[in-house]
Amino acid sequence: MSGTVRHRSDSAALLVLVAISIALLTILSVWKLKQFKYRLMNESGGAVFYGMVLGLAVRCFRLVQGEHAENIESVCTVHDLNPPPHILLINSSSQRHCYRHIGKTSERCSLVSAPQLGTFDPEVFFNLFLPPIIFYGAYTLNQKRFIGNLGSVLTFAFLGTFISCMCIGACIYGFTRLMVLLGQAADGEFLITDCLLFGAIMSATDPVSVLALLSDLRVDLDLHTLLFGESVLNDAAAIVLTHAIATYNQMGAGHTFDPTAFLHAVGLFLGVLTGSLLLGFIFTVITALLTKFTRLHENPLLETSIFLLLSWSSFLSAEAGGLSGIVAVLFCGLSQARYTALNLSPEGRTRTKQLFEVFNFLGEIFIFSYMGYILLTFPHHVFKALFIFGAFLSIFFSRACNIYPLSFLLNLGRTNKIPHTFQHFMMFAGLRGVVSFSLAVRDTLTVARRTIFTTTLLLVCFTIWVLGLAAKPLLCRLDIRVEEDEDELPEHLSSEVATGRPDTTEGLWHSLDYKYLKPLLTHCGPPLTDSLPECCGVFARVFGTPRVQEDEQQLCETEPDDSIFSLEKAERSSTGGDSASEHCEDLLKGDLGLGTGPALTVEA
Amino acid sequence: MSGTVRHRSDSAALLVLVAISIALLTILSVWKLKQFKYRLMNESGGAVFYGMVLGLAVRCFRLVQGEHAENIESVCTVHDLNPPPHILLINSSSQRHCYRHIGKTSERCSLVSAPQLGTFDPEVFFNLFLPPIIFYGAYTLNQKRFIGNLGSVLTFAFLGTFISCMCIGACIYGFTRLMVLLGQAADGEFLITDCLLFGAIMSATDPVSVLALLSDLRVDLDLHTLLFGESVLNDAAAIVLTHAIATYNQMGAGHTFDPTAFLHAVGLFLGVLTGSLLLGFIFTVITALLTKFTRLHENPLLETSIFLLLSWSSFLSAEAGGLSGIVAVLFCGLSQARYTALNLSPEGRTRTKQLFEVFNFLGEIFIFSYMGYILLTFPHHVFKALFIFGAFLSIFFSRACNIYPLSFLLNLGRTNKIPHTFQHFMMFAGLRGVVSFSLAVRDTLTVARRTIFTTTLLLVCFTIWVLGLAAKPLLCRLDIRVEEDEDELPEHLSSEVATGRPDTTEGLWHSLDYKYLKPLLTHCGPPLTDSLPECCGVFARVFGTPRVQEDEQQLCETEPDDSIFSLEKAERSSTGGDSASEHCEDLLKGDLGLGTGPALTVEA
Repeated sequence: MSGTVRHRSDSAALLVLVAISIALLTILSVWKLKQFKYRLMNESGGAVFYGMVLGLAVRCFRLVQGEHAENIESVCTVHDLNPPPHILLINSSSQRHCYRHIGKTSERCSLVSAPQLGTFDPEVFFNLFLPPIIFYGAYTLNQKRFIGNLGSVLTFAFLGTFISCMCIGACIYGFTRLMVLLGQAADGEFLITDCLLFGAIMSATDPVSVLALLSDLRVDLDLHTLLFGESVLNDAAAIVLTHAIATYNQMGAGHTFDPTAFLHAVGLFLGVLTGSLLLGFIFTVITALLTKFTRLHENPLLETSIFLLLSWSSFLSAEAGGLSGIVAVLFCGLSQARYTALNLSPEGRTRTKQLFEVFNFLGEIFIFSYMGYILLTFPHHVFKALFIFGAFLSIFFSRACNIYPLSFLLNLGRTNKIPHTFQHFMMFAGLRGVVSFSLAVRDTLTVARRTIFTTTLLLVCFTIWVLGLAAKPLLCRLDIRVEEDEDELPEHLSSEVATGRPDTTEGLWHSLDYKYLKPLLTHCGPPLTDSLPECCGVFARVFGTPRVQEDEQQLCETEPDDSIFSLEKAERSSTGGDSASEHCEDLLKGDLGLGTGPALTVEA
Repeated sequence: MSGTVRHRSDSAALLVLVAISIALLTILSVWKLKQFKYRLMNESGGAVFYGMVLGLAVRCFRLVQGEHAENIESVCTVHDLNPPPHILLINSSSQRHCYRHIGKTSERCSLVSAPQLGTFDPEVFFNLFLPPIIFYGAYTLNQKRFIGNLGSVLTFAFLGTFISCMCIGACIYGFTRLMVLLGQAADGEFLITDCLLFGAIMSATDPVSVLALLSDLRVDLDLHTLLFGESVLNDAAAIVLTHAIATYNQMGAGHTFDPTAFLHAVGLFLGVLTGSLLLGFIFTVITALLTKFTRLHENPLLETSIFLLLSWSSFLSAEAGGLSGIVAVLFCGLSQARYTALNLSPEGRTRTKQLFEVFNFLGEIFIFSYMGYILLTFPHHVFKALFIFGAFLSIFFSRACNIYPLSFLLNLGRTNKIPHTFQHFMMFAGLRGVVSFSLAVRDTLTVARRTIFTTTLLLVCFTIWVLGLAAKPLLCRLDIRVEEDEDELPEHLSSEVATGRPDTTEGLWHSLDYKYLKPLLTHCGPPLTDSLPECCGVFARVFGTPRVQEDEQQLCETEPDDSIFSLEKAERSSTGGDSASEHCEDLLKGDLGLGTGPALTVEA
């Protein structure tokens, strides 16, 4: 073991050890606080707090050891390095040292200060921890409620995100003009595209924090679905929107409107969104066919491993192909829960869920503590008081412009309306988190982007701590039933569950889902030979259900998921996973998925 | 998203995607082969094979794109770089590039060729995948059989490793002298310490491959315990021995015997071994006390997360402290199974095991395919025919010198002897694998170390493919009962299990384990107030069992682990985990742990 390698390994181990210690501290202290019914903090808030404590410690340590920093960076000038090599070998006095290319830097601005650059790579964080978090969010979405509220959720997630992005962009652009007038910023420092970018970044409400909040509070199930579904899906919208705006920006358009670049950006938005969506779905199809047509279900370990690897592949393939990995893994999670989960053995299903639950739980803690750490150690923060103030105002304003008008419009079409109390709560439950952070951190080269990054971090901490804390009193004030009856769910669903067969809605979604995808990918639904036209007879016979096993038949008919996941129900209250995924349910007749079922709450 | 970062992220995603595809291919093809009762390959062998296919593809691709390599490395000379900085900023024509220090290189020899250096870092592999593999091996060791055969296992693991190391070292030294005589090597190229190092590296039999082999074959349980226990524990011995020899080597001693360096190496051996052992145990104590004195068991997710984090911490702390992480995590796994597992809730226990099972399964596949990949892409292989031939001979010779004499000695003290058939099988079941590879790969700077690395890779492939394949015919030939009756285990144990209380052996181990550790760390065993002397009354009352819950009491008395882990039994046959960990069992009277219970097999 040579000295250098050994030393590097040691310091890496030490860093991971510190991260693990923070995670342990967070878990134990939040758990202890919760035991005392002292719900001041959830895991996210605790993790950010401990991350900040670590950041503070590192800062103090660095102040004390100021001279040590000298040794960390060296600058030298080399010509003829175009394109830059991946590996640079440096002949020093006696030895030859090996250096690896990390990236371009401009104006000596790196994401974190040099010693951290080597070890705390944000890309590693996002490639490792973000996918399971997003996947778990999508995978555990209450399928039945989600389908029932599909129209509303999609409206909030896509139209809402667009409205929110535009509102924040416009507001913040006004504030940046004010900053220029007051002499706090140079003219041209903040372009309109920077402002829109900030709008897109801040439009992503965070499924992790929202889920933690909702599970702690036990809100109404429809409200739960609306909020959680929105927060899961609007990530996709915000990510792709950010990507499109950044591309528009890079094409040189900024001050003036450039139609070509605009069309390019719109094309990119649609292309990346549909591409990622399709890719996520393709991996679901592979997993579903693999689990349907083989006897993998006899071995839960293999089943779980393959499920895990294929789901992760959807993220990686999208990233490798220049699409959005998060969007792909999100749709993969949604469709895996709807189709593949039906093919898994009961044990495989439990295992898969528990595995992702652990990944999600730990990943969440690691990312949030990293956020707290970066907040205090990022060396190039740009605090612009007016910008931050404007951002604070604009996120409330934009949320209001998003929720109230859209709810009004949706209520025109919904049988069970979204009550005003729900709307007020949704207005305040838009916590920001991991996705906003990951979007803001990707580029911190210009002053504008650094201002955006700093403001995003501050807003994330504010929404998690202050809004998260205010949620419970607000719920009580709004008179929304806080203590959801645990038994209500299965009973309420039983009438639909017992019938087994969904209504014969003629909607496009239903016919695609129930007539074609279900029979193709699972053992449920009508035989493919009935759904497909005559000419596809061979295809229908090959991909139709070859052997409907008795237990699978039963699964399709009686929706046993409530009992399968009953294990997890007991613990749900403290860890944050609404897990009763109902699979074989479908859109009920009419209503366009804008919200079905009797209104359970009292209109305020 | 700046272009550079984006590009780097894409290529990293592509690499992980390739690794995942290989894992999927391996899982599916080996599973398919096994379905046809065509046990030519297990997962390890399959993974090595696919890794080699990938390596071949990369090699061909690189041959075709020969000129591309130019762009990857650049060499420049810089003075005044002592000590070398972590981050190097290079001013190129227009941009500034950021480079991170990887390590020293001498004679332009890097582990893998440059493009791989950046992405396939072996340290990452070992820090990420090796600990769960070793932990899982130790954690699922059949506790009762292990304790029953403790003396024999320890003898094989420690004394056997030492004998094996010396034998291989001596043999190979003879061959290197022969090489010098034949002009195939320069005098002084292979020192005696290099040969001993090779001996230590090749002494580590691999728990992963051995476990896969044993589970596929269903051998006698005592033979299973002897082989698996030996392979788990001799890793510790081999790792520490390698470390000690490398240190002796680094102190400049080589040709002549240096008493100071020797004493230093011996001290290091003992220090690292006991230090790592203690560290692993300390983390078990922390986990056990945490799970004993808190109500964490009410929340299986938190329980599992904390168990996972603390077990991983044992590895990281040891690495950060300059000790052996693998040895620490090994002893942590052994003691967690014995103590902490008793404090977990039934669901937490199942979850923990399933989680580590997935990690172990995937980690094994990734490491073995990496091995196959490196075998074909490592650019500095040194094939010395005579060295390889000598190594082949010496591993059989050393194994014989290890197994037969030690079995003879052990049989003098055992009530149920180790039959000759067992000895013959043990002789051939010494598969080499992950640990040998990880020890050999750590230093490939000199020609001698590169020869060792190449030979180790070849031997690993040979033992996994040829010996692994020959095991089944050999078992039939030796007339060892292959089809172990599944029901035999619980019935056979029932007499001891039902009594609940172990014998009152006065052995040191028993009194330490049963009288002090069990009551301190779990809710089992006699009250601490009885075991400890009067003066420790306060300690005994504080750490004694505060509340023996009914289910825990039951656990201690009836050993329900068979039923708890019964879920996994069904799948054990195909995935390789002998999981019936019996916890509350102890050393039986007399016999010094050299093997108890009636001899189940017919002496050949």
